[in-house]
Amino acid sequence: MKVNLKPKTVMYPSPAVIATAFDENDNPDSCTLAFAAPISHFPPAIVIGINSTLKRKTLVSILKSKEFCVGFPSANHAAEADYIGIDSSYDVDKIERVGWTFEDGDIVHAPVINELKVTAECKVIDIKEVGSHTQITGEIVNIRADENVLDESGKIDFEKLNPLLYDVLKRDYYCIGDKVADAFNVGLKYHD
Amino acid sequence: MKVNLKPKTVMYPSPAVIATAFDENDNPDSCTLAFAAPISHFPPAIVIGINSTLKRKTLVSILKSKEFCVGFPSANHAAEADYIGIDSSYDVDKIERVGWTFEDGDIVHAPVINELKVTAECKVIDIKEVGSHTQITGEIVNIRADENVLDESGKIDFEKLNPLLYDVLKRDYYCIGDKVADAFNVGLKYHD
Repeated sequence: MKVNLKPKTVMYPSPAVIATAFDENDNPDSCTLAFAAPISHFPPAIVIGINSTLKRKTLVSILKSKEFCVGFPSANHAAEADYIGIDSSYDVDKIERVGWTFEDGDIVHAPVINELKVTAECKVIDIKEVGSHTQITGEIVNIRADENVLDESGKIDFEKLNPLLYDVLKRDYYCIGDKVADAFNVGLKYHD
Repeated sequence: MKVNLKPKTVMYPSPAVIATAFDENDNPDSCTLAFAAPISHFPPAIVIGINSTLKRKTLVSILKSKEFCVGFPSANHAAEADYIGIDSSYDVDKIERVGWTFEDGDIVHAPVINELKVTAECKVIDIKEVGSHTQITGEIVNIRADENVLDESGKIDFEKLNPLLYDVLKRDYYCIGDKVADAFNVGLKYHD
């Protein structure tokens, strides 16, 4: 039987990503987010949401610089990713605190965290206030990836990346499980 | 060593959700999407992206009705979810084709697929064209959930839902794996 639940923010699953930007003094700001999705293929674009009711320096820096990176933690990065969602870049250099390092993006001026295997460099193309959060849409202009996360065809290998995922309601991190099926394939049995 | 990859739409992981809406004749339109994220806590809101360069009747119906549902398939729904991303609601009643049924939403007038364990009912609050896709932000005004997907405290249990996830680059479906850590907890070791 179906029941009504009080409206809460749900999305199953959500990713756990790390948004980064430089402030006006080139200090690296970083912030872990579950509010992130692909949003366009052409041009490639993603959308992120950052809480504008909390002390989020990364949000201020993205709105100023109009450039940011989104890095994808692996399952073994749960502690670092979690911490980067707890403290504020106003108070501490979180990247340094967790023992990580960064380099500048190749196309945008925003920190690429060296320890993350895949990072998307983005330029802001839309900003919209949505309730407690600022919704930021960014065009992906470059992807930085570790060579060892690529498959033999040069594509990012999902299992080698082993991305961290998040249960936004119960606040738990999970890893990915087994491959279930090929898309645009397993459903063809219903197609005429 | 890090390398640059040609910009493509990446998000690790992405969900695989099913957006639904009624057309003006109350026919149920449905469309599987990987472009979906939570975007605000207060009010609860999500954002979805639907390809506007393809034949997507669900997009037309959402833009007209300003109401939609987002249902979350479980790992055992991969074939049905995949099919609903292949054919067009202009050509076939996809919900019927896969042997599923629906009821009307409790708050919004949009189809809630009975076979999905959790569905968010949404009202459109923002629309923005982003390249190949239409970015639609919706406030979650109700959640319909199977009683058997709830834990003892009445919250949606991530593992009972066992949501389907998606590798947007290599087009593979995965299931969730093991719980890795508690959020706002495992990172506290870096906090002063």
